[in-house]
Amino acid sequence: MSSEAAPPVGRAITAVDVIRAKRDGQVLTPAQIDWVIDAYTRGAVADEQMSALAMAIYLNGMNRAEIARWTRAMVESGVHLELGGVDRPTVDKHSTGGVGDKITLPLAPLVATCGAAVPQLSGRGLGHTGGTLDKLESIPGWRAHLSVEEISRQLRDVGAVVCAATEGLAPADRKLYALRDVTSTVESVPLIASSIMSKKIAEGADALVLDVKAGSGAFMKTVNEARRLAEALVGIGDEHELKVTALLTDMSVPLGHAVGNAVEVAEAVQVLRGDGPADVVELTVALAREMLALAGLPDVDPGEVLGSGAAYETWCRMIRAQGGDPEAPLPRARHVHVVEAERDGVLTTLDAYAVGVAAWRLGAGRTRKEEAVQHAAGVLCLAKPGERVAAGQPLLELHTDTPDAVPAALAALARQMEIADEAPARTPLVMDVLRGKVR
Amino acid sequence: MSSEAAPPVGRAITAVDVIRAKRDGQVLTPAQIDWVIDAYTRGAVADEQMSALAMAIYLNGMNRAEIARWTRAMVESGVHLELGGVDRPTVDKHSTGGVGDKITLPLAPLVATCGAAVPQLSGRGLGHTGGTLDKLESIPGWRAHLSVEEISRQLRDVGAVVCAATEGLAPADRKLYALRDVTSTVESVPLIASSIMSKKIAEGADALVLDVKAGSGAFMKTVNEARRLAEALVGIGDEHELKVTALLTDMSVPLGHAVGNAVEVAEAVQVLRGDGPADVVELTVALAREMLALAGLPDVDPGEVLGSGAAYETWCRMIRAQGGDPEAPLPRARHVHVVEAERDGVLTTLDAYAVGVAAWRLGAGRTRKEEAVQHAAGVLCLAKPGERVAAGQPLLELHTDTPDAVPAALAALARQMEIADEAPARTPLVMDVLRGKVR
Repeated sequence: MSSEAAPPVGRAITAVDVIRAKRDGQVLTPAQIDWVIDAYTRGAVADEQMSALAMAIYLNGMNRAEIARWTRAMVESGVHLELGGVDRPTVDKHSTGGVGDKITLPLAPLVATCGAAVPQLSGRGLGHTGGTLDKLESIPGWRAHLSVEEISRQLRDVGAVVCAATEGLAPADRKLYALRDVTSTVESVPLIASSIMSKKIAEGADALVLDVKAGSGAFMKTVNEARRLAEALVGIGDEHELKVTALLTDMSVPLGHAVGNAVEVAEAVQVLRGDGPADVVELTVALAREMLALAGLPDVDPGEVLGSGAAYETWCRMIRAQGGDPEAPLPRARHVHVVEAERDGVLTTLDAYAVGVAAWRLGAGRTRKEEAVQHAAGVLCLAKPGERVAAGQPLLELHTDTPDAVPAALAALARQMEIADEAPARTPLVMDVLRGKVR
Repeated sequence: MSSEAAPPVGRAITAVDVIRAKRDGQVLTPAQIDWVIDAYTRGAVADEQMSALAMAIYLNGMNRAEIARWTRAMVESGVHLELGGVDRPTVDKHSTGGVGDKITLPLAPLVATCGAAVPQLSGRGLGHTGGTLDKLESIPGWRAHLSVEEISRQLRDVGAVVCAATEGLAPADRKLYALRDVTSTVESVPLIASSIMSKKIAEGADALVLDVKAGSGAFMKTVNEARRLAEALVGIGDEHELKVTALLTDMSVPLGHAVGNAVEVAEAVQVLRGDGPADVVELTVALAREMLALAGLPDVDPGEVLGSGAAYETWCRMIRAQGGDPEAPLPRARHVHVVEAERDGVLTTLDAYAVGVAAWRLGAGRTRKEEAVQHAAGVLCLAKPGERVAAGQPLLELHTDTPDAVPAALAALARQMEIADEAPARTPLVMDVLRGKVR
């Protein structure tokens, strides 16, 4: 009946002890955290032990010091990215993910044009949120995987690089993330915050701006949850002497009009050419302003630079440097299904999660990591909440190469677009800004 | 960032959903429980998923209906033991484990002598509590593993059999128990109760008496914890139409004088010959009385039968039927270390856990399942709490074949035997009796 090991007289740390401590609501010691992350990376702590610990952390939490140490241990599980010869301040950005969130695409060349270096190591999409690499891969010839030397050279030559994370960064996080995904331990603030920050710290940026999203299309559904995550992220930055600013932004409706891959690239190009949707422009400029402030360039006005067209030139050089042709036509879907307004009125709701699921169903996203995405699939939102619409007017275009998927996309959208007589109350896009202590 | 699968429209049950439901404090549905236990047994639910679920159950609990269904699903994961041709009522006993708990040894032949059939499928020890099979294996020639046919025949011929569990009973429990052991999810009332009862129900007894122990030497350290476990066990019995009675008994001091393997067999024989320690006799008779009541034999007085010597005859036949020689000398330890009283007074404390750990250290127990035990190792408690002792009088004998282990045993015992001027308050051995609804 007993699971006891030897009595606790000077014994070594064991997985069973660490799990029990967190299970019983205790604060893990730095030694316990360092040991369990290292042992898990080496395979000496088994997946079934780490998943039990992750569930105990999910339910009993970790305090600020534990989260910082957990993050550090994950950073130390791997290598640090060493970018050689970059003489400009480097500043990074991370979004917790949303629907239509193509902000990285115009943001990286914009901030580079303003004088900072932007090494943006990105991921792929899973579920209803898209991935930056999936979007850029819709550009003919563009490649996501660069060597450390290529990243350094592109940062020197262009100032911006958006590419896949290199091997060896925070392997503990990679292993733990895959485990959390199958054990319902994803949605834990300490585990999310340490996962995000371990990768960013290992990437070695001097400063980091976080876009923490709240709403149906975001990972965090409520502003309070998003605020708790933002506080944890900024707290980790403070503990690691990293300059961090977090924006709390709304994700109850999709960002911009385009949700998918190629359609989002096209919209990003519109932004860079000075013709983008107001919300995408607003968020791009707001994030750029914070990044430039952390990079020691507070006097540059990114809005002005965006209007000048110079950022578009940087975009083209950035795409070309990675083998892409920024002038090549983007792939177009073989099938477009139009959803029309059922009545006259004001569009009051266009649920971000529903649109994200619809785009995923149409082929823009994947359910399993090994699946391919359709470059041309996605949703175009022809009207956004607050706009007046007439019965029969096109509201959405569903783009796909697999028309069999349209009914599932329509099912996801059912009752998620509302038209009323009165305009809805407006939510600000940037709801709050949290600044770290390190400046 | 997302771990979402498809939206919840008529989808099949998945491990991620079941874990999430319990993580979020929901009641699992019968379909979810049946599915997850079956899928885990088949290997379709991975160990890391089941351990996350076990931790969620540990922290969020299960209600009575969930525990009953979980138990049933574990029973259905394997075969039912079919004992053919036994015309007497069968009644089983289970102890949650304690130090010096050799009660099964005199109890099974005693109850058989009184007219019931006792199929007692037992286990081995791990940690500080001994295992019934380990004890019996100190008898030369005795073998633990019997076929179903041998068990049936011995029940018909002798009326009592104590042997290893046959293959195929509740395999889900076997797999889950091993997993819980390495993931700090052992000490959960729903998981303990369903583990115990699934095996007993699969063994097919008509009635079951439970000895639920409370105290330092028990799995449950407090009476309240033990009572909660007893209530869960009786509740499962009620839900499965099984006659169940649970005794809450004290395990703050070792049972009897002998703690180990051969030394406990010798003490059991003393009990069967009418010369056993008072506490062992008391508990044996109390459990026998409850077993006989459930077996429909309330008028037989087991105390009287014990005094007659008839139960000893049954013991000898039971041991011989399994190849053992009940008259053969038991193994004796090569080394005996005596611990003496440091002062005159009354022995007030003899901590059960400390004595259990000391016996374990001396070689009577194992730390890993695959280890062998020393048949002759153990502790003899020459005085019990309440007895007056004189300085220099032997209090304990430490028996071992590996004298290097003595310092560790002494360390476990340090400050766990107290001598004072006043006698301690006495705790009753049987603290309460809980009876199920099925009679």
